[in-house]
Amino acid sequence: MTTLLQQNIANHISLSEDETAAFCNLFKHRKVNKKSFLLSEGEICRFEGFVVKGLLRIYHIDKNGLEQVLYFAIENWWITDIDSFTNEKPSQLFIEALEDCEVLLISKKDKEFAYENLPKIEKLFRVMTQKTHVALQRRMIDNLSKTADQRYIEFSEKYPQLIQRLSNIQIAAYLGITNVFLSNIRKKISLKK
Amino acid sequence: MTTLLQQNIANHISLSEDETAAFCNLFKHRKVNKKSFLLSEGEICRFEGFVVKGLLRIYHIDKNGLEQVLYFAIENWWITDIDSFTNEKPSQLFIEALEDCEVLLISKKDKEFAYENLPKIEKLFRVMTQKTHVALQRRMIDNLSKTADQRYIEFSEKYPQLIQRLSNIQIAAYLGITNVFLSNIRKKISLKK
Repeated sequence: MTTLLQQNIANHISLSEDETAAFCNLFKHRKVNKKSFLLSEGEICRFEGFVVKGLLRIYHIDKNGLEQVLYFAIENWWITDIDSFTNEKPSQLFIEALEDCEVLLISKKDKEFAYENLPKIEKLFRVMTQKTHVALQRRMIDNLSKTADQRYIEFSEKYPQLIQRLSNIQIAAYLGITNVFLSNIRKKISLKK
Repeated sequence: MTTLLQQNIANHISLSEDETAAFCNLFKHRKVNKKSFLLSEGEICRFEGFVVKGLLRIYHIDKNGLEQVLYFAIENWWITDIDSFTNEKPSQLFIEALEDCEVLLISKKDKEFAYENLPKIEKLFRVMTQKTHVALQRRMIDNLSKTADQRYIEFSEKYPQLIQRLSNIQIAAYLGITNVFLSNIRKKISLKK
Protein backbone atom coordinates (compact mmCIF):
# COMPACT_ATOMS: atom_id res chain seq x y z
CA MET A 1 0.00 0.00 0.00
CA THR A 2 2.89 2.36 0.73
CA THR A 3 5.08 1.38 -2.25
CA LEU A 4 4.18 4.47 -4.27
CA LEU A 5 4.69 6.70 -1.22
CA GLN A 6 8.10 5.13 -0.58
CA GLN A 7 9.13 5.81 -4.20
CA ASN A 8 7.88 9.39 -3.92
CA ILE A 9 9.95 9.96 -0.77
CA ALA A 10 13.03 8.35 -2.33
CA ASN A 11 12.81 10.90 -5.17
CA HIS A 12 13.42 13.67 -2.65
CA ILE A 13 15.57 12.28 0.20
CA SER A 14 17.58 9.24 1.22
CA LEU A 15 16.09 7.37 4.16
CA SER A 16 17.16 4.02 5.61
CA GLU A 17 14.66 1.15 5.45
CA ASP A 18 13.83 1.64 9.12
CA GLU A 19 13.32 5.38 8.71
CA THR A 20 11.10 4.84 5.67
CA ALA A 21 9.00 2.29 7.56
CA ALA A 22 8.75 4.56 10.61
CA PHE A 23 7.56 7.46 8.48
CA CYS A 24 5.15 5.47 6.30
CA ASN A 25 3.58 3.87 9.39
CA LEU A 26 2.36 7.32 10.41
CA PHE A 27 -0.03 7.37 7.43
CA LYS A 28 -3.57 6.00 7.56
CA HIS A 29 -5.17 4.42 4.50
CA ARG A 30 -8.56 5.73 3.43
CA LYS A 31 -10.93 5.01 0.54
CA VAL A 32 -12.86 7.95 -0.86
CA ASN A 33 -15.74 7.13 -3.17
CA LYS A 34 -16.35 9.09 -6.35
CA LYS A 35 -18.23 12.36 -5.65
CA SER A 36 -17.36 12.17 -1.92
CA PHE A 37 -15.52 14.95 -0.12
CA LEU A 38 -12.27 14.59 1.79
CA LEU A 39 -12.62 18.22 2.93
CA SER A 40 -15.44 20.78 2.78
CA GLU A 41 -15.41 24.55 3.21
CA GLY A 42 -15.65 25.51 6.89
CA GLU A 43 -13.96 22.33 8.15
CA ILE A 44 -10.45 22.31 9.56
CA CYS A 45 -8.15 20.27 7.33
CA ARG A 46 -6.72 17.64 9.67
CA PHE A 47 -4.53 15.84 7.15
CA GLU A 48 -1.83 16.04 4.56
CA GLY A 49 -2.58 13.35 1.98
CA PHE A 50 -0.84 11.30 -0.67
CA VAL A 51 -2.87 9.90 -3.58
CA VAL A 52 -2.38 6.17 -4.17
CA LYS A 53 -5.25 5.76 -6.63
CA GLY A 54 -7.77 8.00 -8.32
CA LEU A 55 -8.30 11.67 -9.11
CA LEU A 56 -9.33 14.53 -6.84
CA ARG A 57 -9.96 18.20 -7.35
CA ILE A 58 -9.23 21.00 -4.90
CA TYR A 59 -11.56 23.92 -5.50
CA HIS A 60 -12.98 27.13 -4.09
CA ILE A 61 -16.42 28.65 -4.61
CA ASP A 62 -15.87 32.28 -5.64
CA LYS A 63 -17.92 35.41 -4.88
CA ASN A 64 -20.15 34.72 -7.89
CA GLY A 65 -20.88 31.16 -6.77
CA LEU A 66 -18.58 29.68 -9.41
CA GLU A 67 -16.31 26.72 -8.71
CA GLN A 68 -12.66 27.67 -9.24
CA VAL A 69 -10.30 24.69 -9.36
CA LEU A 70 -6.94 25.40 -7.67
CA TYR A 71 -5.45 22.11 -8.74
CA PHE A 72 -6.11 18.44 -9.50
CA ALA A 73 -4.31 15.53 -7.87
CA ILE A 74 -3.79 12.04 -9.29
CA GLU A 75 -1.61 9.11 -8.24
CA ASN A 76 1.72 10.19 -6.69
CA TRP A 77 0.51 13.72 -5.85
CA TRP A 78 0.07 15.30 -2.45
CA ILE A 79 -3.09 17.06 -1.27
CA THR A 80 -3.98 19.35 1.60
CA ASP A 81 -5.21 22.81 2.39
CA ILE A 82 -1.87 24.04 3.73
CA ASP A 83 -3.40 27.16 5.32
CA SER A 84 -6.12 25.28 7.19
CA PHE A 85 -3.82 22.37 8.10
CA THR A 86 -0.95 24.54 9.37
CA ASN A 87 -2.96 27.21 11.14
CA GLU A 88 -5.88 25.01 12.22
CA LYS A 89 -8.43 27.43 10.77
CA PRO A 90 -11.61 26.66 8.80
CA SER A 91 -10.87 25.86 5.18
CA GLN A 92 -12.13 27.89 2.23
CA LEU A 93 -11.62 24.88 -0.01
CA PHE A 94 -13.29 21.64 -1.03
CA ILE A 95 -11.38 18.44 -1.83
CA GLU A 96 -13.61 16.13 -3.86
CA ALA A 97 -12.97 12.71 -5.37
CA LEU A 98 -13.73 12.72 -9.11
CA GLU A 99 -13.01 8.96 -9.29
CA ASP A 100 -13.00 6.22 -6.62
CA CYS A 101 -9.83 7.07 -4.69
CA GLU A 102 -7.39 5.65 -2.19
CA VAL A 103 -5.31 8.04 -0.15
CA LEU A 104 -2.76 7.89 2.66
CA LEU A 105 -3.30 10.56 5.30
CA ILE A 106 -0.95 11.90 7.96
CA SER A 107 -2.19 14.06 10.85
CA LYS A 108 -0.56 17.29 12.03
CA LYS A 109 0.48 15.60 15.29
CA ASP A 110 2.14 12.70 13.45
CA LYS A 111 3.83 15.09 11.02
CA GLU A 112 5.25 17.06 13.97
CA PHE A 113 6.39 13.74 15.46
CA ALA A 114 8.19 12.95 12.20
CA TYR A 115 9.92 16.35 12.15
CA GLU A 116 11.23 15.76 15.65
CA ASN A 117 12.24 12.14 15.33
CA LEU A 118 13.24 11.88 11.66
CA PRO A 119 15.07 15.14 10.93
CA LYS A 120 15.42 14.29 7.22
CA ILE A 121 11.66 14.76 6.92
CA GLU A 122 12.30 18.51 7.26
CA LYS A 123 14.11 18.37 3.93
CA LEU A 124 11.35 16.29 2.30
CA PHE A 125 8.68 18.87 3.13
CA ARG A 126 11.01 21.84 2.54
CA VAL A 127 11.63 20.62 -1.01
CA MET A 128 7.99 19.65 -1.63
CA THR A 129 6.60 22.93 -0.25
CA GLN A 130 9.10 24.78 -2.43
CA LYS A 131 7.85 22.89 -5.51
CA THR A 132 4.20 23.60 -4.68
CA HIS A 133 5.07 27.25 -4.13
CA VAL A 134 6.77 27.38 -7.54
CA ALA A 135 3.72 25.72 -9.14
CA LEU A 136 1.33 28.20 -7.50
CA GLN A 137 3.47 31.18 -8.56
CA ARG A 138 3.63 29.87 -12.15
CA ARG A 139 -0.16 29.44 -12.18
CA MET A 140 -0.63 33.00 -10.91
CA ILE A 141 1.75 34.44 -13.53
CA ASP A 142 0.27 32.28 -16.32
CA ASN A 143 -3.19 33.59 -15.46
CA LEU A 144 -1.85 37.13 -15.83
CA SER A 145 0.32 36.66 -18.87
CA LYS A 146 -1.20 33.97 -21.07
CA THR A 147 -4.44 33.69 -23.02
CA ALA A 148 -6.92 30.90 -22.19
CA ASP A 149 -5.92 29.20 -25.49
CA GLN A 150 -2.25 29.13 -24.47
CA ARG A 151 -3.07 27.90 -20.98
CA TYR A 152 -5.26 25.11 -22.34
CA ILE A 153 -2.59 23.97 -24.82
CA GLU A 154 0.14 24.00 -22.15
CA PHE A 155 -2.07 22.17 -19.66
CA SER A 156 -2.87 19.42 -22.22
CA GLU A 157 0.79 19.06 -23.18
CA LYS A 158 1.99 18.93 -19.57
CA TYR A 159 -0.69 16.57 -18.25
CA PRO A 160 -1.96 14.45 -21.19
CA GLN A 161 -3.20 11.70 -18.85
CA LEU A 162 -5.07 14.15 -16.67
CA ILE A 163 -6.86 15.71 -19.65
CA GLN A 164 -8.22 12.28 -20.65
CA ARG A 165 -9.65 11.70 -17.17
CA LEU A 166 -11.27 15.12 -16.76
CA SER A 167 -14.61 16.38 -18.05
CA ASN A 168 -14.80 19.63 -20.03
CA ILE A 169 -16.51 21.26 -17.05
CA GLN A 170 -13.56 20.43 -14.78
CA ILE A 171 -10.95 21.67 -17.25
CA ALA A 172 -12.91 24.91 -17.78
CA ALA A 173 -13.14 25.44 -13.98
CA TYR A 174 -9.36 25.02 -13.76
CA LEU A 175 -8.67 27.46 -16.59
CA GLY A 176 -11.18 29.97 -15.19
CA ILE A 177 -13.27 30.03 -18.37
CA THR A 178 -16.76 28.87 -19.34
CA ASN A 179 -17.51 25.47 -20.78
CA VAL A 180 -18.60 27.08 -24.06
CA PHE A 181 -15.36 29.06 -24.30
CA LEU A 182 -13.35 25.84 -23.77
CA SER A 183 -15.31 24.09 -26.56
CA ASN A 184 -14.48 27.00 -28.89
CA ILE A 185 -10.77 26.69 -28.04
CA ARG A 186 -10.87 22.94 -28.72
CA LYS A 187 -12.63 23.52 -32.06
CA LYS A 188 -10.05 26.13 -33.09
CA ILE A 189 -7.20 23.74 -32.21
CA SER A 190 -8.73 20.79 -34.08
CA LEU A 191 -9.27 22.97 -37.18
CA LYS A 192 -5.59 23.95 -37.14
CA LYS A 193 -4.43 20.30 -37.09
CA MET B 1 24.11 44.76 10.03
CA THR B 2 22.79 41.24 10.65
CA THR B 3 20.90 42.00 13.91
CA LEU B 4 17.50 42.07 12.21
CA LEU B 5 18.31 38.87 10.31
CA GLN B 6 19.38 37.16 13.54
CA GLN B 7 16.09 38.13 15.18
CA ASN B 8 14.15 36.90 12.19
CA ILE B 9 15.90 33.53 12.32
CA ALA B 10 15.37 33.27 16.09
CA ASN B 11 11.63 33.64 15.51
CA HIS B 12 11.66 30.39 13.55
CA ILE B 13 14.44 28.16 14.96
CA SER B 14 16.92 27.91 17.83
CA LEU B 15 20.52 28.24 16.69
CA SER B 16 23.64 28.51 18.85
CA GLU B 17 25.68 31.72 18.61
CA ASP B 18 28.25 29.95 16.44
CA GLU B 19 25.59 28.52 14.12
CA THR B 20 23.91 31.93 13.80
CA ALA B 21 27.23 33.57 12.96
CA ALA B 22 28.13 30.84 10.46
CA PHE B 23 24.79 31.25 8.68
CA CYS B 24 24.72 35.06 8.74
CA ASN B 25 28.26 35.20 7.36
CA LEU B 26 26.98 33.59 4.17
CA PHE B 27 24.98 36.75 3.35
CA LYS B 28 26.41 39.66 1.41
CA HIS B 29 25.32 43.21 2.11
CA ARG B 30 24.09 45.29 -0.81
CA LYS B 31 22.66 48.78 -1.21
CA VAL B 32 19.95 49.24 -3.82
CA ASN B 33 19.10 52.81 -4.73
CA LYS B 34 15.52 53.93 -5.17
CA LYS B 35 14.18 53.02 -8.65
CA SER B 36 17.01 50.48 -9.19
CA PHE B 37 16.35 46.84 -9.95
CA LEU B 38 17.60 43.88 -7.97
CA LEU B 39 16.17 41.56 -10.64
CA SER B 40 14.78 42.10 -14.13
CA GLU B 41 12.66 39.85 -16.34
CA GLY B 42 14.86 37.45 -18.33
CA GLU B 43 17.64 37.34 -15.74
CA ILE B 44 18.29 34.32 -13.55
CA CYS B 45 17.61 35.17 -9.90
CA ARG B 46 20.91 34.34 -8.17
CA PHE B 47 19.88 35.28 -4.63
CA GLU B 48 17.47 34.89 -1.82
CA GLY B 49 17.34 38.23 0.01
CA PHE B 50 16.45 39.67 3.38
CA VAL B 51 15.40 43.32 3.61
CA VAL B 52 17.30 45.30 6.25
CA LYS B 53 16.06 48.72 5.17
CA GLY B 54 13.65 50.10 2.59
CA LEU B 55 10.77 48.94 0.46
CA LEU B 56 10.77 46.83 -2.69
CA ARG B 57 8.09 45.57 -5.03
CA ILE B 58 8.05 42.26 -6.88
CA TYR B 59 6.01 42.54 -10.06
CA HIS B 60 5.18 40.97 -13.39
CA ILE B 61 4.23 42.65 -16.66
CA ASP B 62 1.05 40.96 -17.89
CA LYS B 63 -0.12 40.19 -21.43
CA ASN B 64 -1.69 43.67 -21.71
CA GLY B 65 1.53 45.39 -20.68
CA LEU B 66 0.22 46.18 -17.19
CA GLU B 67 2.37 45.89 -14.08
CA GLN B 68 0.89 43.35 -11.65
CA VAL B 69 2.43 43.47 -8.18
CA LEU B 70 2.83 40.02 -6.62
CA TYR B 71 3.97 41.40 -3.29
CA PHE B 72 5.83 44.18 -1.50
CA ALA B 73 8.71 43.66 0.90
CA ILE B 74 9.83 45.94 3.72
CA GLU B 75 12.26 45.52 6.63
CA ASN B 76 12.30 41.96 8.02
CA TRP B 77 10.81 40.40 4.85
CA TRP B 78 12.41 37.94 2.47
CA ILE B 79 12.57 38.40 -1.31
CA THR B 80 13.38 36.16 -4.24
CA ASP B 81 11.88 34.67 -7.37
CA ILE B 82 11.69 31.15 -5.98
CA ASP B 83 11.07 29.59 -9.43
CA SER B 84 14.03 31.29 -11.09
CA PHE B 85 16.31 30.84 -8.04
CA THR B 86 15.51 27.16 -7.51
CA ASN B 87 15.38 26.05 -11.13
CA GLU B 88 17.98 28.48 -12.50
CA LYS B 89 15.62 29.64 -15.26
CA PRO B 90 15.05 33.17 -16.58
CA SER B 91 12.74 35.15 -14.32
CA GLN B 92 9.37 36.54 -15.38
CA LEU B 93 9.54 39.04 -12.54
CA PHE B 94 11.08 42.38 -11.65
CA ILE B 95 12.28 43.29 -8.16
CA GLU B 96 12.53 47.07 -7.88
CA ALA B 97 13.50 49.31 -4.96
CA LEU B 98 10.77 51.86 -4.23
CA GLU B 99 12.98 53.48 -1.56
CA ASP B 100 16.75 53.44 -0.96
CA CYS B 101 17.24 49.90 0.29
CA GLU B 102 19.76 47.70 2.08
CA VAL B 103 19.48 43.97 1.61
CA LEU B 104 21.39 40.85 2.67
CA LEU B 105 21.73 38.31 -0.13
CA ILE B 106 22.58 34.62 -0.02
CA SER B 107 23.52 32.68 -3.16
CA LYS B 108 22.14 29.27 -4.13
CA LYS B 109 25.56 27.70 -3.53
CA ASP B 110 25.83 29.19 -0.03
CA LYS B 111 22.26 28.20 0.76
CA GLU B 112 23.04 24.60 -0.26
CA PHE B 113 26.18 24.78 1.91
CA ALA B 114 24.00 25.88 4.85
CA TYR B 115 21.57 22.99 4.28
CA GLU B 116 24.43 20.53 4.38
CA ASN B 117 26.39 21.98 7.27
CA LEU B 118 23.69 23.51 9.46
CA PRO B 119 20.80 21.02 9.29
CA LYS B 120 18.47 23.29 11.32
CA ILE B 121 18.41 25.63 8.33
CA GLU B 122 16.19 23.04 6.60
CA LYS B 123 13.54 23.78 9.19
CA LEU B 124 13.99 27.55 8.82
CA PHE B 125 13.27 27.45 5.10
CA ARG B 126 10.63 24.71 5.41
CA VAL B 127 8.65 26.92 7.80
CA MET B 128 9.26 30.10 5.80
CA THR B 129 8.36 28.51 2.45
CA GLN B 130 5.21 27.13 4.06
CA LYS B 131 4.24 30.62 5.25
CA THR B 132 4.87 32.13 1.81
CA HIS B 133 2.85 29.33 0.23
CA VAL B 134 -0.04 30.06 2.64
CA ALA B 135 0.19 33.79 1.81
CA LEU B 136 0.14 33.11 -1.94
CA GLN B 137 -2.84 30.74 -1.62
CA ARG B 138 -4.74 33.32 0.48
CA ARG B 139 -4.01 36.00 -2.13
CA MET B 140 -5.28 33.72 -4.91
CA ILE B 141 -8.48 32.89 -2.98
CA ASP B 142 -9.02 36.52 -1.93
CA ASN B 143 -8.79 37.58 -5.57
CA LEU B 144 -11.50 35.06 -6.40
CA SER B 145 -13.77 35.60 -3.44
CA LYS B 146 -13.53 39.21 -2.35
CA THR B 147 -14.42 42.53 -3.95
CA ALA B 148 -11.69 45.14 -4.57
CA ASP B 149 -13.20 47.24 -1.75
CA GLN B 150 -12.84 44.36 0.73
CA ARG B 151 -9.31 43.60 -0.44
CA TYR B 152 -8.26 47.24 -0.07
CA ILE B 153 -9.73 47.50 3.45
CA GLU B 154 -8.08 44.25 4.57
CA PHE B 155 -4.74 45.26 3.03
CA SER B 156 -4.81 48.65 4.83
CA GLU B 157 -5.75 47.03 8.13
CA LYS B 158 -3.10 44.33 7.85
CA TYR B 159 -0.26 46.57 6.68
CA PRO B 160 -0.95 50.13 7.90
CA GLN B 161 2.76 51.09 7.69
CA LEU B 162 3.05 49.76 4.16
CA ILE B 163 0.01 51.74 2.96
CA GLN B 164 1.64 54.97 4.16
CA ARG B 165 4.82 54.27 2.22
CA LEU B 166 3.12 53.28 -1.05
CA SER B 167 1.75 55.47 -3.83
CA ASN B 168 -1.83 54.98 -5.08
CA ILE B 169 -0.40 53.55 -8.31
CA GLN B 170 1.49 50.83 -6.40
CA ILE B 171 -1.50 49.87 -4.27
CA ALA B 172 -3.74 49.70 -7.35
CA ALA B 173 -1.19 47.46 -9.14
CA TYR B 174 -1.23 45.14 -6.13
CA LEU B 175 -5.02 44.98 -5.96
CA GLY B 176 -5.28 44.48 -9.73
CA ILE B 177 -7.46 47.57 -10.24
CA THR B 178 -7.00 50.96 -11.90
CA ASN B 179 -5.81 54.03 -10.06
CA VAL B 180 -9.19 55.70 -10.65
CA PHE B 181 -11.05 52.70 -9.22
CA LEU B 182 -8.83 52.83 -6.10
CA SER B 183 -9.56 56.56 -5.65
CA ASN B 184 -13.29 55.78 -5.81
CA ILE B 185 -12.91 53.09 -3.13
CA ARG B 186 -11.00 55.52 -0.90
CA LYS B 187 -13.67 58.20 -1.39
CA LYS B 188 -16.45 55.73 -0.51
CA ILE B 189 -14.59 54.70 2.66
CA SER B 190 -13.92 58.28 3.82
CA LEU B 191 -17.61 59.18 3.26
CA LYS B 192 -18.65 56.28 5.49
CA LYS B 193 -16.43 57.45 8.37
